[in-house]
Amino acid sequence: MIKIAVAGCTGYAGGELLRLLAVRDDVEIGALTAKSSAGTMLGQHHQHLTTLLEREVLDTTAENLAGHDVVFLALPHGASAEVAATLGDDTVVVDAGADFRLESAADWAHFYGTPHAGTWPYGLPELPGQRERLASTRCIAVPGCFPTTITLALAPALQAGLVDGHDVVAVAPTGPSGAGKALKPHLLGAELMGSASAYGVGGVHRHVPEILQNFRKLGAAAPSISFTPVLVPMSRGILATVTAPLTSPLSTRDAREAYAAAWEGEPFVRLLPEGLWPQTQSVLGSNYVHVQVAVDEQAGRLVAVAALDNLTKGTAGGAIQSMNLALGLPETLGLTTMGVAP
Amino acid sequence: MIKIAVAGCTGYAGGELLRLLAVRDDVEIGALTAKSSAGTMLGQHHQHLTTLLEREVLDTTAENLAGHDVVFLALPHGASAEVAATLGDDTVVVDAGADFRLESAADWAHFYGTPHAGTWPYGLPELPGQRERLASTRCIAVPGCFPTTITLALAPALQAGLVDGHDVVAVAPTGPSGAGKALKPHLLGAELMGSASAYGVGGVHRHVPEILQNFRKLGAAAPSISFTPVLVPMSRGILATVTAPLTSPLSTRDAREAYAAAWEGEPFVRLLPEGLWPQTQSVLGSNYVHVQVAVDEQAGRLVAVAALDNLTKGTAGGAIQSMNLALGLPETLGLTTMGVAP
Amino acid sequence: MIKIAVAGCTGYAGGELLRLLAVRDDVEIGALTAKSSAGTMLGQHHQHLTTLLEREVLDTTAENLAGHDVVFLALPHGASAEVAATLGDDTVVVDAGADFRLESAADWAHFYGTPHAGTWPYGLPELPGQRERLASTRCIAVPGCFPTTITLALAPALQAGLVDGHDVVAVAPTGPSGAGKALKPHLLGAELMGSASAYGVGGVHRHVPEILQNFRKLGAAAPSISFTPVLVPMSRGILATVTAPLTSPLSTRDAREAYAAAWEGEPFVRLLPEGLWPQTQSVLGSNYVHVQVAVDEQAGRLVAVAALDNLTKGTAGGAIQSMNLALGLPETLGLTTMGVAP
Amino acid sequence: MIKIAVAGCTGYAGGELLRLLAVRDDVEIGALTAKSSAGTMLGQHHQHLTTLLEREVLDTTAENLAGHDVVFLALPHGASAEVAATLGDDTVVVDAGADFRLESAADWAHFYGTPHAGTWPYGLPELPGQRERLASTRCIAVPGCFPTTITLALAPALQAGLVDGHDVVAVAPTGPSGAGKALKPHLLGAELMGSASAYGVGGVHRHVPEILQNFRKLGAAAPSISFTPVLVPMSRGILATVTAPLTSPLSTRDAREAYAAAWEGEPFVRLLPEGLWPQTQSVLGSNYVHVQVAVDEQAGRLVAVAALDNLTKGTAGGAIQSMNLALGLPETLGLTTMGVAP
Repeated sequence: MIKIAVAGCTGYAGGELLRLLAVRDDVEIGALTAKSSAGTMLGQHHQHLTTLLEREVLDTTAENLAGHDVVFLALPHGASAEVAATLGDDTVVVDAGADFRLESAADWAHFYGTPHAGTWPYGLPELPGQRERLASTRCIAVPGCFPTTITLALAPALQAGLVDGHDVVAVAPTGPSGAGKALKPHLLGAELMGSASAYGVGGVHRHVPEILQNFRKLGAAAPSISFTPVLVPMSRGILATVTAPLTSPLSTRDAREAYAAAWEGEPFVRLLPEGLWPQTQSVLGSNYVHVQVAVDEQAGRLVAVAALDNLTKGTAGGAIQSMNLALGLPETLGLTTMGVAP
Repeated sequence: MIKIAVAGCTGYAGGELLRLLAVRDDVEIGALTAKSSAGTMLGQHHQHLTTLLEREVLDTTAENLAGHDVVFLALPHGASAEVAATLGDDTVVVDAGADFRLESAADWAHFYGTPHAGTWPYGLPELPGQRERLASTRCIAVPGCFPTTITLALAPALQAGLVDGHDVVAVAPTGPSGAGKALKPHLLGAELMGSASAYGVGGVHRHVPEILQNFRKLGAAAPSISFTPVLVPMSRGILATVTAPLTSPLSTRDAREAYAAAWEGEPFVRLLPEGLWPQTQSVLGSNYVHVQVAVDEQAGRLVAVAALDNLTKGTAGGAIQSMNLALGLPETLGLTTMGVAP
Repeated sequence: MIKIAVAGCTGYAGGELLRLLAVRDDVEIGALTAKSSAGTMLGQHHQHLTTLLEREVLDTTAENLAGHDVVFLALPHGASAEVAATLGDDTVVVDAGADFRLESAADWAHFYGTPHAGTWPYGLPELPGQRERLASTRCIAVPGCFPTTITLALAPALQAGLVDGHDVVAVAPTGPSGAGKALKPHLLGAELMGSASAYGVGGVHRHVPEILQNFRKLGAAAPSISFTPVLVPMSRGILATVTAPLTSPLSTRDAREAYAAAWEGEPFVRLLPEGLWPQTQSVLGSNYVHVQVAVDEQAGRLVAVAALDNLTKGTAGGAIQSMNLALGLPETLGLTTMGVAP
Repeated sequence: MIKIAVAGCTGYAGGELLRLLAVRDDVEIGALTAKSSAGTMLGQHHQHLTTLLEREVLDTTAENLAGHDVVFLALPHGASAEVAATLGDDTVVVDAGADFRLESAADWAHFYGTPHAGTWPYGLPELPGQRERLASTRCIAVPGCFPTTITLALAPALQAGLVDGHDVVAVAPTGPSGAGKALKPHLLGAELMGSASAYGVGGVHRHVPEILQNFRKLGAAAPSISFTPVLVPMSRGILATVTAPLTSPLSTRDAREAYAAAWEGEPFVRLLPEGLWPQTQSVLGSNYVHVQVAVDEQAGRLVAVAALDNLTKGTAGGAIQSMNLALGLPETLGLTTMGVAP
């Protein structure tokens, strides 16, 4: 049995980790910890975790997190390093936060304004060579949900040289669960239902440097991106429309062939059959990513669309996928359910 | 391997059956059939069924449905009997429609106006003695989604005599997936989003006789119910508020004790911890039913609230639960995932 | 020009008052005040108030509220009396909160646990004789949104003696705007979207005594009600299903005739044509109430359904309707727009 | 009194025209016509039109449409010319469809594949010189909803030369009401709720030539656009994120100044105060357009975001605004209500 703990269990990422892990035969749910909610009952925070409702939330201490095979960190930005330092060397540590994603300390400083904690192997097995790296690590930095979506949308085009990563434009409607359970007025249901709103406009979103870092890994020499997230009335999901100038004229058929070749055999990324375009409902609660691509001749741009569930493949599912690799388990273990639609 | 077929695979019930069955190691997905959509690709109807997108939809014929261990019927009212008659005696037939639910031919005639097809064992294992009946049948009538919700909400109170089933009032917000993929103006997204609307008001809903039939099985001598379904802006889910006059004064604590005793050990029905009230999000895509109960002293009524997913426990999940029993498999096989929330 | 002020302008009731009043030719928007948000820009709180975005929010003080013809109070429970005491005798004071609604100090103490502020004329012109009372008052207590909906749903039946107000059951899906902008986890968008949930179950909702008070005014000798509000995924709206035992057998046609007679000439209450059932979208942002009624013979109950917008007719629109009466203006002035649908 | 008729009154555009016009003192609602629904009651199609529920829908014939001052055409593509030909020369004809929007017969043929009906004065008063043209016409082509949004988002930048209209990328989440009441599976509520989905990807949307036509009128020599509409779970609204390469380096402050100067005095277009970004809820049911702009230095692009209600400013409100001009009335008459939020 793999004994796991979740530090920061009361938030949405923590809840999704437990939803996926609690039904596994090979996993034992160990300590569930939080700071301000220590002493409460898990069901007060996650009423959907039917089999765990009466579990007590413990304090996030070294003692409580000791003795687990895997510890998931679902903590606010900047809090992971301190907790990670208390864990044993043989513990697999999976950080669902941003702390260890960026390789550039300057990028970190620019976007977060705090000291850079370091860089851990990046939990996106679909990047070239990354699956192997994750198989031999004890520390995993789970990617951000937008970088995962946008990177998977454009990766085949970058790798095949159809686009060069310059002047990419991405607009991505998403639901509020990506923002966590923060008690902010603009995240209230009354504000969000029936409304679409842009935020983080103009290059200020913290996921921008992570996206560019991924583009570079995929061969882009001088990537640039205009990225705009949009809040829309659904709890979960990201639908990214990603366009980039074509390096040379191309047909939609050729673009589809490059994508088909690139994603052939990938367990969780699916190029949809021709004529079908991604929709977030189709991947709700699942670890799948749905992708489609077309060429807009008039605009001279490739247009790729990708849909995923920000809490599953975008956070907790992706985290477990990487954990499976680090533990030498089948990569898809516990992650094969399909989207809950309609 | 259990080879299954789904007749009527393009609708929501068919899609949910496949979502739950396609990931099972012990199940082989055989013929997927429909009438008007024969020849199309399954992905055109169910984009979420990632691993089955390119499966061809076959015609609903005896030939195509032959040779399966289990055949699920997800057909319009009145169509099941004819198809069932073509299936072999050793085939387990699970009818997700209404045709074989009612015991009273008069009730059928009154609410449906067509000849009564007959009565099959009722696929609600939580009713007294029903689990045993289902273990020895080849034919299963899947209950209606509202009857399942309302019956499970009130069953402990009826069995313990806290209420006698007379003058029950139930109001149940639900999403449009229960109405199927019918192309009717009132089911369009623009009509439903941001709006709550009552329908089938005044005792005319076809689920009324089925609810009363269940109440009788639970000991009600002369049950009556005012039932009002309400369409609200969510794809799935039923939240039934069910009230009934108390047969004698009672405290909420006593009511909770009766419910705890009744649902103790039931794998899919969960009395929530005190203070938590059911919400449909918590059971989205899962086979669980969440229940809570209180006594309203001023009104002299017991108030029970139950939440389930109309396509999972309310249709396809319940159908598979009964299939498991009929096949001698563990009742919970393939049904243990928890609700997708938030 | 009627100069108006709004104390508590940053909440949803305050925003709706301003939305309705700012476009009137005969109204001048005076002081807009709040406590904790004093000094901010109104647009930070109400981005939809296009013509008022740059108005400054002032502190709620006697000085700031002086010199207005009408002062609306949209304050937390218990705060209205103190502010009202500072206003001049010739000022029309309209309290959108609960403080002055209840006639029984014992009811107030039981449900609110604080000292009773008193009782003001009740701002529901559709009650018998109430239109005249409002025409000669300077102080108005705006009804609660659920009491308005449920009272208007059942009033004709109570007045005609079709039901006696005993053993009423009401279940009312609503959106979260009725709960205000409170920063509570269960009001977050991610929690509410895609989900229906019951709350305040078992007779504990603070609107219960107000509903019973109204039933008594409509002739009920010993009213009782089981009332359950349900949160559903829409910003605004209440759809109340109200059932009550018939005092004697009745046809739906007779029930409709009683309702047609009762609401004939009422400017804002509309009995829908036969066959149409209320939906909240149809009254979104409007002051109209849509009502329909049927008899359920099997259940022996009258079933009435009413829809309104909790922020318009349920709060701010109703408040302005009463203000119009108090000022001797046409009752419908500024309130004639119809629902925004679809 | 201005006597108006609506041909195609049962659809969403027809309903919105009537919602806005029925409350005007200076307007008389004349013939309401449709083809397949002739003989039905208007309330069956538009339950929100409280004061018109019992109006009969007439057949769309020359006789029924004769004798009106203004006739609105809300018909399927290709049907307007024939009906318009039957109307008198002194009738103001406002076509809410696409038939007369495009100046290029080749564009029409390419995107619609039918004969081009012609070109009418374009009902977007915010374009240079257009207000004057509309004041002296009897025929008005109402712009498409996406062209209106995207044009107003970028107009000040084009006019000031901040961008040249080349390589524009626009992604625009919207609700399904823009697609009308078409009974198509992908427009069903169960499919749309909780889901975002792209459609018309790769330059195939019929609004592309109209957008480029507008860009040319605003000074773009060789405009190009990659446009992707996205369906999201709200009934109404468009939120367009429009980016374009800067012609030379620019600060966000300078961009805002250009926008402030351009939209100063425009009655319905509002540059939001700094720090506020458009949201569709804020303009729901209103004729306002909310705009904000920023410069993304890393991407070298201007990013403009605009929100409007596709049925109001995007169709019926815009149509009435142009009608007011054609009739010599104040442009804002009957269009001053603000957005229904939250």
